[in-house]
Amino acid sequence: MTDDGVSYEARQERQARAALSFLAEPGDPALGSLLRLCSPGAILGAVTGRGDPLAALPAAGRDAPGVKRAFERWRKHLPDLPPPGRIEAWMHGRYRLACPGDPEWPTQLDDLGETRPIVLWLRGRDLRFACLRSVAMVGSRAATAYGTHVGTELAADIASRGWTLISGGAFGIDACAHRGALAAGGVTVAVLASGLSFGYPKGHEDLFELVAGTGVMVSECPPDRAPTRPGFLIRNRVIAALSRGTVVVEAARRSGALNTAKHARDLNRPVMAVPGPITSDQSAGCHDLIREYGAACVTSAGHVIELISPLGEADGGSERGPAVPDDILDPVTAAVLRAVPARSGRGPAAIALLAGVDLDTAVRCLGMLAAVGHVERCDQGWRARKAESGQP
Amino acid sequence: MTDDGVSYEARQERQARAALSFLAEPGDPALGSLLRLCSPGAILGAVTGRGDPLAALPAAGRDAPGVKRAFERWRKHLPDLPPPGRIEAWMHGRYRLACPGDPEWPTQLDDLGETRPIVLWLRGRDLRFACLRSVAMVGSRAATAYGTHVGTELAADIASRGWTLISGGAFGIDACAHRGALAAGGVTVAVLASGLSFGYPKGHEDLFELVAGTGVMVSECPPDRAPTRPGFLIRNRVIAALSRGTVVVEAARRSGALNTAKHARDLNRPVMAVPGPITSDQSAGCHDLIREYGAACVTSAGHVIELISPLGEADGGSERGPAVPDDILDPVTAAVLRAVPARSGRGPAAIALLAGVDLDTAVRCLGMLAAVGHVERCDQGWRARKAESGQP
Repeated sequence: MTDDGVSYEARQERQARAALSFLAEPGDPALGSLLRLCSPGAILGAVTGRGDPLAALPAAGRDAPGVKRAFERWRKHLPDLPPPGRIEAWMHGRYRLACPGDPEWPTQLDDLGETRPIVLWLRGRDLRFACLRSVAMVGSRAATAYGTHVGTELAADIASRGWTLISGGAFGIDACAHRGALAAGGVTVAVLASGLSFGYPKGHEDLFELVAGTGVMVSECPPDRAPTRPGFLIRNRVIAALSRGTVVVEAARRSGALNTAKHARDLNRPVMAVPGPITSDQSAGCHDLIREYGAACVTSAGHVIELISPLGEADGGSERGPAVPDDILDPVTAAVLRAVPARSGRGPAAIALLAGVDLDTAVRCLGMLAAVGHVERCDQGWRARKAESGQP
Repeated sequence: MTDDGVSYEARQERQARAALSFLAEPGDPALGSLLRLCSPGAILGAVTGRGDPLAALPAAGRDAPGVKRAFERWRKHLPDLPPPGRIEAWMHGRYRLACPGDPEWPTQLDDLGETRPIVLWLRGRDLRFACLRSVAMVGSRAATAYGTHVGTELAADIASRGWTLISGGAFGIDACAHRGALAAGGVTVAVLASGLSFGYPKGHEDLFELVAGTGVMVSECPPDRAPTRPGFLIRNRVIAALSRGTVVVEAARRSGALNTAKHARDLNRPVMAVPGPITSDQSAGCHDLIREYGAACVTSAGHVIELISPLGEADGGSERGPAVPDDILDPVTAAVLRAVPARSGRGPAAIALLAGVDLDTAVRCLGMLAAVGHVERCDQGWRARKAESGQP
């Protein structure tokens, strides 16, 4: 075991996945298929080896679809592969890596099948917790004054009800989603098409700092990777898959936001659209979604939450229980949550003692639980938060 | 036979229906039920007689639902009943009367069952023809600049494709429907909640003249009747029943336009709504229709026509046949239509000769056929018009 409690082998496999994220484009289905048959280390070894990569691969992987041409693609990027020490530094510095099977990995991404991200580079809070009650809000970069106003208000209203806003960090409606959530003291997740260190668009550097402060910055790409044109569309599947549903606030007929909506529909997540003036080109895509793709016409946060809430939860009023059912929390966090009183409040040290964990762990877990609306600070320390009464 | 080709008995029954329209409120289901069992003359005789009206009624009608209380209601209005001569003058002066069974009676009104109008007072073109390819457009009296612009453009665009616009003659969206149709050289039908001579709202006197010029003014009420508050809602069922579908352009949450939409839905006619800014109260009713009542979200004339066209007609492109299938025309009009050439053109006298009718009849039929887009004037007289190529 290494000093972070992960076995040496598991750590090697995480490093291999991280290395593969430098070689394969996000969403490469050939890599997705191959990872079901071979370990990341075996695949990386085959790509980086001198001989025939297919011969170096375990027998199970040699017949994977498109594997021969995939190796040709991946080997082209070998000159871009940083030395292992640099990858390792990224994994444990400003950013962290989440891999399938990690406690932080959002299992809803598994719905993407062979195009599931092989890793996610993260900065900020716990991603899985942040996305448990979440909705994607996307739309035009060239938003109108109407779309900017409506998108920001809607995002703030959704966030104030304890839901996380997920978007793409772009100018226009994406920014409204993040800023509206932040203004309401809520949680927001930005899934970038560039690496996190590259941080595209550059003009949103300050916004991304704010998002990382209370929410999560996410990318499938290695940190210093610049965005590519197809990369934006490929990224959209992650926004759709992380969330319970997708709202399009403003979109022209050929907007990339419609691509996110299509991904959401393919994933059987609710697709919602905000109507607007029929004289506005930036609402034409929304109206098309409602008319032709059966998207729900939503005009308020209540409508959105009604559509994405589990059956019977949305109309439960202010008395419904916490957002995250206890039984999907990891045992340590669940123990910390059980140690938080429903009324008055309790200090972190007392909570740590009751939960049987050290103070650092208790504080980390309380931060996560607060991010998803489970607990809140009060004069006496921490107490359990009722989901609907917890509006700012 | 009288000199207008109607038997003396039939004429008496028409007069009796007209008289009953002075005594019963529009849409009185008791009268609707009773008229299935007794002749209008027998009912009028019972209402106006001195003794017990039930005893005076043919036996079949005595058990009709609510008949006793209905007679009490109707007898209260006896002082308002004009002398027969005055009713007769109205029926053959500026206005004319249409009764169920008349060639001009729009048979789609029969879908209203026992609330079917007992008569319609009319001014202008042939009502049945005008409504064969028609759509109702309704909305707020307090329309915004957006609604006014969008409603007028949409009405003009629908009318320019050969469809009749039906509305209620009110300020706001109703006026946009009529004005848009008139501006496009199209046909429009105004169904008033007042009598035609009363002409409510008074500010639309000029508009009603224009409507009567190329379309039809319609009312269930006797000509000099003032509108009542419930009368507006009762009138709405006629607008919904006359048309193939209803479009709501702008409506607040409690707008009367939603009542028309509800009638259309109850009649299994398509209900359509035009979206607008979610920040506008005047679009909230439209969004509710789309969200909660399954109304179609329409943003163009093409969408509207697609939804109300008989299967396979709307997407037939410019090559589709005339709007009104020959076989639903009366034999005389059908003969006149057959005498109109597809190319070049033919004068009315030649058409009359070929159709075997006199010149006056030919001219009258040509006017009706033109109103519904069957024929059009050309240098040589009249020719058949292709529906889609006939746009102004």
